[in-house]
Amino acid sequence: MLEKEYQDRRRLACADLQARTWDGLVVSTPVNVRYLSGFTGSSAALVLEPGGQALLFTDPRYAIQAGEETGCRVRVVKGPLPTAVSRHLARRRLRRIGFENTRISFAAHQELSRGATLEPAETLIEDRRMIKSPAEIELIRQSMLVASRAYDRVIRAVRPGMTEAAVAAELDHQMRRLGAEGPAFPTIVAAGPRSALPHASPGPVALKANQLLLIDMGASRNGYASDMTRTVFLGRPAVKAGKMYRAVLEAQQAAIATVRDGVQAAAVERAARRRLRADGLDRAFVHSTGHGLGLEIHEAPRIGRRDKTLLRAGMVVTIEPGVYLEGYGGIRIEDTVAVTADGCEVLTPNSKELAAL
Amino acid sequence: MLEKEYQDRRRLACADLQARTWDGLVVSTPVNVRYLSGFTGSSAALVLEPGGQALLFTDPRYAIQAGEETGCRVRVVKGPLPTAVSRHLARRRLRRIGFENTRISFAAHQELSRGATLEPAETLIEDRRMIKSPAEIELIRQSMLVASRAYDRVIRAVRPGMTEAAVAAELDHQMRRLGAEGPAFPTIVAAGPRSALPHASPGPVALKANQLLLIDMGASRNGYASDMTRTVFLGRPAVKAGKMYRAVLEAQQAAIATVRDGVQAAAVERAARRRLRADGLDRAFVHSTGHGLGLEIHEAPRIGRRDKTLLRAGMVVTIEPGVYLEGYGGIRIEDTVAVTADGCEVLTPNSKELAAL
Repeated sequence: MLEKEYQDRRRLACADLQARTWDGLVVSTPVNVRYLSGFTGSSAALVLEPGGQALLFTDPRYAIQAGEETGCRVRVVKGPLPTAVSRHLARRRLRRIGFENTRISFAAHQELSRGATLEPAETLIEDRRMIKSPAEIELIRQSMLVASRAYDRVIRAVRPGMTEAAVAAELDHQMRRLGAEGPAFPTIVAAGPRSALPHASPGPVALKANQLLLIDMGASRNGYASDMTRTVFLGRPAVKAGKMYRAVLEAQQAAIATVRDGVQAAAVERAARRRLRADGLDRAFVHSTGHGLGLEIHEAPRIGRRDKTLLRAGMVVTIEPGVYLEGYGGIRIEDTVAVTADGCEVLTPNSKELAAL
Repeated sequence: MLEKEYQDRRRLACADLQARTWDGLVVSTPVNVRYLSGFTGSSAALVLEPGGQALLFTDPRYAIQAGEETGCRVRVVKGPLPTAVSRHLARRRLRRIGFENTRISFAAHQELSRGATLEPAETLIEDRRMIKSPAEIELIRQSMLVASRAYDRVIRAVRPGMTEAAVAAELDHQMRRLGAEGPAFPTIVAAGPRSALPHASPGPVALKANQLLLIDMGASRNGYASDMTRTVFLGRPAVKAGKMYRAVLEAQQAAIATVRDGVQAAAVERAARRRLRADGLDRAFVHSTGHGLGLEIHEAPRIGRRDKTLLRAGMVVTIEPGVYLEGYGGIRIEDTVAVTADGCEVLTPNSKELAAL
């Protein structure tokens, strides 16, 4: 990411401060600090002032790294960061301070509130993060390609007798080899009836022939997440599985066709549910249709039946309807898509034909 | 872990409540919930009462899993857990409630404090977690063996020309194959001058001959962390590297020889520094000597020059002195050790002779 992009983000945040007549904003959630400064260390607090000043606090472990990663001024302090920030606010006579009330710990809040009046910033930075820049969309695309290629490499070699855990380990290994820092979330590999548990974790369970196999995976690359799910059949697909698969695929396609700038998130979910209802499967679709992603694997907006957020060009979201029949199995198909002015771009290139392994 | 062990832990926590005359304790840090209940989901709040009642709140995604993992009563709720917990406290007329002030978010605190008087629990559960049961030490030993074997498998194949990132990926892959959930922390592989940065992250940097190579790694297995560091030389060790290595190894051995029940943590660090001072290297030892580990990779106690905690049988800590010369390289040697009544047991079986690759 170019330093200019971080500067633009800080400029927008500072404009938000001015609009609220705050004297400062303290950002200490690592992912928000990274968004505003480029610094990737785990110990950081960034103080922004309405005039555009930005000061990054970190501890001595990160002194060299902070200097390399950020264009902000850096202050290396020993001891708790909230204490150092609190002293800094007092010295600068900054009184009305926005703080990350949904993220900060109670103890840090206590320390910061010694000399300042703290104002809840709610999701001020997270709201900005919803709209991705072209550079960010490119980073998510690269992350997606890593997951996509790892999937294609591994799926070819999957056979009955292998365990879920071994397949997951191989997927993660291939993502690393292709340039990921690691998986964006614990990779899900769930076979047969276990695929009906939306959050199954891969176990020492051997894959059997004539079963569904669900794989939900994503990479973290340069800090950006990607997310995809494919469901395949081990053997020649049973008629029941084929019918379910077609319903889910058409529901996913219907949802994707709905995505464009200005559409309500709930309308996307409605499109998926409508198609599933035609096969009596909407009750088996037990989660929501998708979620934003970026520096975190789950970000705003959510795409659920009650989500009134308007999708905007630059948002990146997953579209992932699924149906789950207890005792039989589950089918989920998920792509990561970037919202555009007149539709969306699907960033997940993998085939969605029902594969027979 | 047997259900009886969780029951014993809850019994101790309830005794702590009684001693403080609190009406309840709300635990919502996932790792503390796991410690007290066995539940491994990411969304949970556990309410303990002085009489021994334990009620676990989670969301519908974890309904099945919670039932399988914990012997506690489970309540599955939709919507924010703090809201449900707050209602529960009001219904049960529980007024003085201990809460995790160092961990809980400010927003959750606000929600919980609606009807209750919140009392800071500080590190009540973390303090209990410092002393490991025999079953926990066995789990840490198993985790250590996974990391240890992965290291031995990979180090044999390391050659100049390979990148740091490739070696790290291979270490992580072998840990997974040997049964780890994953690395306990991002594996460090740092070559040459980069080994002088205590927190270097592995890059696309090719290893060269006649350099130091530092590897700091650990597994997470069944939730328990392990931690080890070895430093090797690519080629025939230079005299300077050999001398530094001997100083660090003897410092580490001196520190380990000091560890036993009743000794102050600071005394362990002093033993390491004393040996390094003899070679004028104590100033190049820029971090502390070690830290506790268990369900988290960094737990109490810390072993630093100002840490007055008395080591106790059952604590598991790392002993990891290191020296770092900017522009040249760093050497760190780290074992995980379990404190016993009359000494300690080193859980890291790998050789500490200076290996020449």
